Amino acid sequence: MSASRIVVVGSLAFDNIETPRAKVDLAVGGAASYFAVAASFFAPVAVVGVVGRDFPQAELDFFKARGIDLEGLEIADGQTFRWTGRYHENMNLRDTLDLQLNVFANFSPKLPAAYRTADICFLANIDPALQLKVLSELERPRLVAADTMNHWIENAHDNLVKLLKRVEILVINDQEAFQLSGSDNIIRASRRILEMGPRHVIIKRGEYGAIHFSADSVFAVPAYPLEEVVDPTGAGDTFAGGLIGYLAKQPEVTTAAVRKGMVYGSVMASMVVEDFSFDRLRKIDESDIEKRYNQFVALTQF
Amino acid sequence: MSASRIVVVGSLAFDNIETPRAKVDLAVGGAASYFAVAASFFAPVAVVGVVGRDFPQAELDFFKARGIDLEGLEIADGQTFRWTGRYHENMNLRDTLDLQLNVFANFSPKLPAAYRTADICFLANIDPALQLKVLSELERPRLVAADTMNHWIENAHDNLVKLLKRVEILVINDQEAFQLSGSDNIIRASRRILEMGPRHVIIKRGEYGAIHFSADSVFAVPAYPLEEVVDPTGAGDTFAGGLIGYLAKQPEVTTAAVRKGMVYGSVMASMVVEDFSFDRLRKIDESDIEKRYNQFVALTQF
Repeated sequence: MSASRIVVVGSLAFDNIETPRAKVDLAVGGAASYFAVAASFFAPVAVVGVVGRDFPQAELDFFKARGIDLEGLEIADGQTFRWTGRYHENMNLRDTLDLQLNVFANFSPKLPAAYRTADICFLANIDPALQLKVLSELERPRLVAADTMNHWIENAHDNLVKLLKRVEILVINDQEAFQLSGSDNIIRASRRILEMGPRHVIIKRGEYGAIHFSADSVFAVPAYPLEEVVDPTGAGDTFAGGLIGYLAKQPEVTTAAVRKGMVYGSVMASMVVEDFSFDRLRKIDESDIEKRYNQFVALTQF
Repeated sequence: MSASRIVVVGSLAFDNIETPRAKVDLAVGGAASYFAVAASFFAPVAVVGVVGRDFPQAELDFFKARGIDLEGLEIADGQTFRWTGRYHENMNLRDTLDLQLNVFANFSPKLPAAYRTADICFLANIDPALQLKVLSELERPRLVAADTMNHWIENAHDNLVKLLKRVEILVINDQEAFQLSGSDNIIRASRRILEMGPRHVIIKRGEYGAIHFSADSVFAVPAYPLEEVVDPTGAGDTFAGGLIGYLAKQPEVTTAAVRKGMVYGSVMASMVVEDFSFDRLRKIDESDIEKRYNQFVALTQF
């Protein structure tokens, strides 16, 4: 079958990033950017988001060259969302040094008419009220997946609970799963989240990979061990891009498909952290993806 | 083929353990105990160690009932080694509250004549000088595996380096690997340790499983996710027991055998943490091991 179209809503940003070994300013980032670029290797992607007038035309051209539909990308007066962060020596830890929402502050997603029939939707980490709004504008998606973060778990709990009833796949990190569920045991946490609505809970564990829970399956995939992680920013959204991109090519969201999708998500994440921004993904093609996929097979088979 | 005989040298102890949810005194522990009980499900095991007169006859009888050869277990005047520890809410972390070496203080391993022809040797975490002494008393082992800890890496570095030249499989945890190698990247750390002698480096990562490096292979196995970990004490030694026990049944230490052995090690470790001491292993049989092994297949296949 041909791949279903994916609509993604989320942030596009400039990131100023300092790691223990390097520093970069104005790297293109944001959850929707990372997701869209990763997913575009598998399926057609359409973006809903906002950037300022300072967003480079060359980057918009890169998205278009990857077949990413930008009709839903608003270009607003003002500056693009900016995040400044510093990673610890242990790159699982980072501090946000500065956050300027800029044009993102008043963002209200609007779906172009052509997006409303999309089969698949990824609601990246934004206010659950906006995630719900996007969902209400879609006619009949066959797959809805979402991410969220501690801020919304604390401050938008009711809308998040409402959203979860309509989400098939929730992709969050371990700390968020513990916070959302009120349990610090990964099995009990997942079971409680499954009771909140999603049929699949996928928990990201940074350098240790990801683990999946559904009613009848548990699946763990390790992260690909790398000699040098240049920049972990966007790894989670890139993982989601590979996962949902792979699923867009499958006729059904079976457990087997979710497992393979998680491996493709891990493949894409393992490549994106090899450079700043999604620069690594600018240089790869399908054969690099298949090669890394085979390395995951070799990494895990016994 | 029938399984090769394994000689293990290491501690036998009484543990006083406090976890966030329970407390137990005088639990039978020690690296050699955990290793021997786990390995005994796969191969004949012979123990070299020392206990005091206070060590219960019922426990010695349990070892014997599992086919464990105790000819090399010295019963000395005085008290058995005692360790008192408290686990944090995050059970990957623990504090040693008290340590009484007792009869272990003057322990000098002596191999009974019948042990010298053993094919396989596991040198559990003790002074590298004693590990070297045991090794010198073995005629021609086909497989030597070892563990160590931060204390010896700091304080017995020269003997440890000497030992590593003669070890085929080193089983240590991630922090020890970083300390031993001087690198905090798991690939660079493993490469440096491989240069020190071992053909296989297996790094234990607690609740995240274990990862194996050799010249031509990287293999990662997740830990089995458990709803309740009662007591993580001895998980690493139990892992080593399952691993080396499995290898004792194989004609050669191939990469494929090491991978399967790591899964069996993970199987045994996932069961031992379900109760204090190795009480869980008192209640299982080969069919429980195969059942959990199949759960590992289900956990990891895609």
